[in-house]
Amino acid sequence: MTTLDDRTITTDLADIGDFTASLRQEHDDLFEAFWAHPFLRELRAGTLSREATLHYVGQDHHYLSAYLRCYGLGMAKSPDRPWMRHFVDSSLFLLEDESHPHHVMCESFGVQYEAVQHDRLAPSAQAYIDHMMECGHDSLGVLMFALLPCPWTYIWAGNRYLAQHDNPADNKFEGWWQFYGSPDCNDLLANLLQRCEALAQEAGPAERARMARAFELSCHHEIRFWQLAYTRETWGDLPRSILAG
Amino acid sequence: MTTLDDRTITTDLADIGDFTASLRQEHDDLFEAFWAHPFLRELRAGTLSREATLHYVGQDHHYLSAYLRCYGLGMAKSPDRPWMRHFVDSSLFLLEDESHPHHVMCESFGVQYEAVQHDRLAPSAQAYIDHMMECGHDSLGVLMFALLPCPWTYIWAGNRYLAQHDNPADNKFEGWWQFYGSPDCNDLLANLLQRCEALAQEAGPAERARMARAFELSCHHEIRFWQLAYTRETWGDLPRSILAG
Amino acid sequence: MTTLDDRTITTDLADIGDFTASLRQEHDDLFEAFWAHPFLRELRAGTLSREATLHYVGQDHHYLSAYLRCYGLGMAKSPDRPWMRHFVDSSLFLLEDESHPHHVMCESFGVQYEAVQHDRLAPSAQAYIDHMMECGHDSLGVLMFALLPCPWTYIWAGNRYLAQHDNPADNKFEGWWQFYGSPDCNDLLANLLQRCEALAQEAGPAERARMARAFELSCHHEIRFWQLAYTRETWGDLPRSILAG
Amino acid sequence: MTTLDDRTITTDLADIGDFTASLRQEHDDLFEAFWAHPFLRELRAGTLSREATLHYVGQDHHYLSAYLRCYGLGMAKSPDRPWMRHFVDSSLFLLEDESHPHHVMCESFGVQYEAVQHDRLAPSAQAYIDHMMECGHDSLGVLMFALLPCPWTYIWAGNRYLAQHDNPADNKFEGWWQFYGSPDCNDLLANLLQRCEALAQEAGPAERARMARAFELSCHHEIRFWQLAYTRETWGDLPRSILAG
Repeated sequence: MTTLDDRTITTDLADIGDFTASLRQEHDDLFEAFWAHPFLRELRAGTLSREATLHYVGQDHHYLSAYLRCYGLGMAKSPDRPWMRHFVDSSLFLLEDESHPHHVMCESFGVQYEAVQHDRLAPSAQAYIDHMMECGHDSLGVLMFALLPCPWTYIWAGNRYLAQHDNPADNKFEGWWQFYGSPDCNDLLANLLQRCEALAQEAGPAERARMARAFELSCHHEIRFWQLAYTRETWGDLPRSILAG
Repeated sequence: MTTLDDRTITTDLADIGDFTASLRQEHDDLFEAFWAHPFLRELRAGTLSREATLHYVGQDHHYLSAYLRCYGLGMAKSPDRPWMRHFVDSSLFLLEDESHPHHVMCESFGVQYEAVQHDRLAPSAQAYIDHMMECGHDSLGVLMFALLPCPWTYIWAGNRYLAQHDNPADNKFEGWWQFYGSPDCNDLLANLLQRCEALAQEAGPAERARMARAFELSCHHEIRFWQLAYTRETWGDLPRSILAG
Repeated sequence: MTTLDDRTITTDLADIGDFTASLRQEHDDLFEAFWAHPFLRELRAGTLSREATLHYVGQDHHYLSAYLRCYGLGMAKSPDRPWMRHFVDSSLFLLEDESHPHHVMCESFGVQYEAVQHDRLAPSAQAYIDHMMECGHDSLGVLMFALLPCPWTYIWAGNRYLAQHDNPADNKFEGWWQFYGSPDCNDLLANLLQRCEALAQEAGPAERARMARAFELSCHHEIRFWQLAYTRETWGDLPRSILAG
Repeated sequence: MTTLDDRTITTDLADIGDFTASLRQEHDDLFEAFWAHPFLRELRAGTLSREATLHYVGQDHHYLSAYLRCYGLGMAKSPDRPWMRHFVDSSLFLLEDESHPHHVMCESFGVQYEAVQHDRLAPSAQAYIDHMMECGHDSLGVLMFALLPCPWTYIWAGNRYLAQHDNPADNKFEGWWQFYGSPDCNDLLANLLQRCEALAQEAGPAERARMARAFELSCHHEIRFWQLAYTRETWGDLPRSILAG
């Protein structure tokens, strides 16, 4: 059993590679904005509204399907079988385990998971997905840095929450936090950080610049995803407001 | 010289193919929202602010570079030399002619074109580009329907403006309107509408559904592009507002 | 336990969809050339040389890695989670089960599997892979029809062999034949045939033509793969023969 | 007017970048095999048969269409407008000028260019194209090194021919040689060599290894293209020979 101290290791910048660590430091403001967003603040306090929670679940399920497509692009660019195995294992994890935190959210409000599915992505979720897919048509390294902020922000936030709260805390979303702060998730993140750094080390300056940009934009997209959930964003919002004058 | 009657022909739904015409009708509200957006309203009135105008030019120049990349994807999917020639000619038009309306805008405020270049796309422009590029990794037909709303909304608006105003009207942006309402632009649109319809006619239902979705989202993105220019959107807006509490 | 009669069902053209069945009939000569190639004839007779066998294994291992990359492209184009699950399951099968017939071949000659790995694909194997990857940048349907001849020819040949020989026959490659004629492989093929036909049914004529071309070329590539193994083809063959005058 | 001395400058390894020059030296045997192939030998002697010549023209026209698609992939990966302009200009050159040597060949035998068009690529031509397209789904640098051997081998051979023969020589294919040894073609090659080297300089070791492989395989494909023309290769050759026993 991992202790909390072990668990924080992966987010200790001293233990990750130079390129990845410097990106993390450069965008610490984005990680802090992620943490400070009202959606996450209310998820910590257990006060997040039913509407925002379920909008999030519906969008995130759809988003994870698209994330699987990015794993496919990663497989297609894999230089060897261990990389292919990585993407197959990651796909299985996503297909089989990552619905757990969604179920926690649905159960908090006594709703069936199947009842909250959305049939299309909101603008900010679609933009995030299109960004990652585009990076998946660049190099494996650019793709990996586009994919990294999703697990990194969530697992970093999970660890931070667990370090600041009773274990378990009295929070209807406690299972969500326990999942992202779990040893399994920390191992998964440590593995990704190593893979990303290895790719950065063998990349030239032009590719590194694209990796850095991919990472930065995905950090922004993570924050924007909270915003879309919190505001229950839809495509119709803007045209309706214009036509209403 | 084309008369106004000729010029409106291409936007006459009776003259374009069934699939394309039905998409146009289905999303008439999006065309009307495009037209009604304050950015375009003020561009008609000649009252658009220097800041919004120049933000638009800087973003649109960058956007058109990305549009050229989409033409590249189109060339790569071209079934024959006439299609390749179409994309080469379209690229030349864009490289050589489409900076004209940008120059009109810069000159209205006595600014050099080169001085308003942006080094990165705003979130809504990047989302639009990533959407079109993703469609460019689908089929030629899906790409073409993703590309279509940009010329269609602009040229439709150009024709509508010219039909409603003196020719020339007393508007510091008159050259912008004259460009998009020009016979050349109408010919270009008529050509695109024919190409799109031909691709739709030979597509199956699944691809047609993706064509329709690509078109609809690009219509939304056109409206969102006015919004980004009007609000001078940047990536930093959201994280800053969160961290400011 | 499936009987031989059940097993032949999947190759019964009456039971598969119209488009797929007509492709199969149109290219029956290619299936017969596949069957008649000296490599396969000697694999049936148990007389295939050590050199040809091991060259085949080395190339086919490499080829299957590239096949996995094609599954990645398929995942990236999957319209829904069942399709993604199909590619993940197919990847697991390939990573875990399909080395079995390779091991049979190595053991026939008392060689370690690891000892026969090649570090690059021969020209005909590389051409096959590049063909399938290119189809993977077209539509999901075109990709699926490019991937289909590999399992279809092998499993069809496996069934045909088992129907013509004692069970088990006295053949040092018997395990190879048993694998491709197994109920599991027949189920896998039946599943692929259904998926392919469903995609053809929703495709338009232009995409169908590309599907048919992809299928035909992959049938040719299957025959050429026997040829490369039988002749122990390398990239250096042609330049060496030219320079030798 | 450029003198021969000027013209040979671009093939002087002292004048091109380190990475590109070392690739050229490493694969000098492939350039020599290209030069020594009977097809090119007979093209120098003016004795190439009508059948081989026209098979070549039919295949090469088709090949150049696919080459244009690769330019499209290059445009889609272009980092800036000068790179886009490069691909647009290259496309125009190919659409407008590169049919000239084909016409020379057709006229040598009193045949109309339109009469020798093929409706499909032979196996070796298709393999070449699929190789380049696949490289076009990797990075811009990998694509450029896959595209480089085509102009480099032809223009190097053109210069070598002109240096060894009277000017003009008494050769029914003299116009073909004059085209590829022309100052325009040498300028084009010099430009490509600079672009390739610049991309190699900013690439990391993994991408450089893929660039080197792409280049080497395209050199092989160039030789194999002579072979396909000389043997009038078709897809049906192999299955027919097998079925004929």
